[in-house]
Amino acid sequence: PPILDLAVVAGDGIGTEVVEQGLLVLEQALHGTGTTVRTTDFDLGARRWHTTGQTLTDEDLAAIRTHHAILLGAIGDPTVPSGVLERGLLLKLRFALDHYVNLRPGKLFPGVRSPLANPGDVDFVVVREGTEGPYVGNGGAIRVGTPAEVANEVSVNTAFGVERVVRDAFARAAARPRKKLTLVHKHNVLVHAGHLWRRTVEAVNAEFPDVTVDYLHVDAATIFLVTDPARFDVIVTDNLFGDILTDLAAAITGGIGLAASANINPDRTAPSMFEPVHGSAPDIAGQGKADPTATVLSVAMLLDHVGLPDAARAVEGAVAADLAERGAAERVRSTAEVGKDLAARVAG
Amino acid sequence: PPILDLAVVAGDGIGTEVVEQGLLVLEQALHGTGTTVRTTDFDLGARRWHTTGQTLTDEDLAAIRTHHAILLGAIGDPTVPSGVLERGLLLKLRFALDHYVNLRPGKLFPGVRSPLANPGDVDFVVVREGTEGPYVGNGGAIRVGTPAEVANEVSVNTAFGVERVVRDAFARAAARPRKKLTLVHKHNVLVHAGHLWRRTVEAVNAEFPDVTVDYLHVDAATIFLVTDPARFDVIVTDNLFGDILTDLAAAITGGIGLAASANINPDRTAPSMFEPVHGSAPDIAGQGKADPTATVLSVAMLLDHVGLPDAARAVEGAVAADLAERGAAERVRSTAEVGKDLAARVAG
Ligand SMILES: CC(C)[C@H](C(=O)O)[C@@H](O)C(=O)O
Ligand SMILES: CC(C)[C@H](C(=O)O)[C@@H](O)C(=O)O
Repeated sequence: PPILDLAVVAGDGIGTEVVEQGLLVLEQALHGTGTTVRTTDFDLGARRWHTTGQTLTDEDLAAIRTHHAILLGAIGDPTVPSGVLERGLLLKLRFALDHYVNLRPGKLFPGVRSPLANPGDVDFVVVREGTEGPYVGNGGAIRVGTPAEVANEVSVNTAFGVERVVRDAFARAAARPRKKLTLVHKHNVLVHAGHLWRRTVEAVNAEFPDVTVDYLHVDAATIFLVTDPARFDVIVTDNLFGDILTDLAAAITGGIGLAASANINPDRTAPSMFEPVHGSAPDIAGQGKADPTATVLSVAMLLDHVGLPDAARAVEGAVAADLAERGAAERVRSTAEVGKDLAARVAG
Repeated sequence: PPILDLAVVAGDGIGTEVVEQGLLVLEQALHGTGTTVRTTDFDLGARRWHTTGQTLTDEDLAAIRTHHAILLGAIGDPTVPSGVLERGLLLKLRFALDHYVNLRPGKLFPGVRSPLANPGDVDFVVVREGTEGPYVGNGGAIRVGTPAEVANEVSVNTAFGVERVVRDAFARAAARPRKKLTLVHKHNVLVHAGHLWRRTVEAVNAEFPDVTVDYLHVDAATIFLVTDPARFDVIVTDNLFGDILTDLAAAITGGIGLAASANINPDRTAPSMFEPVHGSAPDIAGQGKADPTATVLSVAMLLDHVGLPDAARAVEGAVAADLAERGAAERVRSTAEVGKDLAARVAG
């Protein structure tokens, strides 16, 4: 598009700081593409909730929908009761905008130190389902605060929801050199949901005969992520298992300071949302210490999504070059310095 | 007790092989304690199911109940549909015998290689709830096999169930030098169950004022398990999160070949059950390749539980000495050789 209408939800804590640098790099990457970005800031998060009691109104949502994409920094603050902003804002965006593909690459860039002694060549992507599972918010509790309290959480899984994300994952696997898909679940215990996932993967495999499929229980998957992460190509899994595995994936590939993500609506019935995997990190907020790299890599995913793959590759290349030289750096750079350096590399 | 009545469920795959060595070491450890072991073998698992269609009958359960403890090898076989033996036998034992404390140490023994470059001094224990959460089997599905299928899984959490396991975890933390307890959950998403866990930990903390408490979301906990596992002392968590974290814990401390566990009924209304964390490993079954060390360490937990701490320490000491020398070993030993060596060390 000649104009890329971008909804910006900087959010809480370090969200503002990293988004600023993400936008700087985005503008630089758009240079010469014929596309310019037009941003709308949305005041959402802890401040808004404290002053108005609102998390995300119907009006906010309607306004966000008019954009091509969303760039999100981070949501969450210790001054807000747990769950209020997560359920009322972040997850509400993912669910309302039907972000059923939550895409999270696990890539160890050359020069980046992993906590693993021998990580090998790690380059996989997790396709985390984004609109079902234990995240649906269908739980409840009775007799709260009494010795007879019962608190239930319900994981809802539908053929509709599982099939569409599984098909997306197969398509991604088919487009990659290794063409490997690993389903992660726990079908020996969660038999109903697990068997739905398993049957669906088997059925959709017929449409992608050149993709090799295997299966791991979620507990075993965590083992392989630390003993042999290079074995993974595309992982498809449910919302909660995906949440857990992608933080672990981030840890083994250099930390959540580098982990990008995309909440994608593949049918394009609503804007997709790009956000670093890390949270608002209140402990370091406002100090210019946050690494904006995860946000910048999320910007690359955004560029891919809006049909500008060359610009996306330029941003990724800038990050790769920057990471390769970090080990030799004399000192730790500020958030703004990293952003400036990355923008300069994109320009250069 | 002068006679220790032990129910033996060797089970499937490598279960038989490792249990044989576990019993050898157990007998050696009992020498001179005034206690002798009397074992009853229970034919449970894949073979029994194939020949009779039974997993665990009321009669089996009644017979098992008459014992002081259970030693279990492994349950599960690829020839049996997923979930049948897990739900019908292994989990049925844990639930029926009210094993609400599933205790899983994460200890990196000197000489053991971790996949982590700098693991540090890792010595924690996970107290995994064993009778609630998503393991209750209260899920269900409708319109199975059609495009309109819905498959639900229900996590049930009660004040009764959470409080008793949290209290047990606090008592364990209070008895350890560091006196630290970490609650792991996901209360920003699973708000009902998560808040029950959180409130319960806060309330029980009043009874154990010298225990320091912190909290991690399950996704963040996986990060710390690979970046700083030495920070953990006692972790208390729900059944499913505990399943995931303890496989990861096993991986970073040398693999599931070394990971012991105890399914404890602290009220002693039924026998507790001791089992290696690893499964039946059909790929190496019958080849004498399985490492019986996890079973032997589970035997040490059994000895502690039946009031023979000196014998337990002797078994642990034998394992520690054996592991310390493994690196220098000329060749890989068979299952029976490891068992024989460990028994000899206990004797010596
Ligand atoms: C903040 C939280 C609700 C969120 C999630 O659980 O999805 C985060 O952990 C993530 O992975 O994006
Ligand atoms: C086999 C399976 C049912 C079991 C579990 O999930 O509890 C296993 O993974 C374990 O951790 O003991």
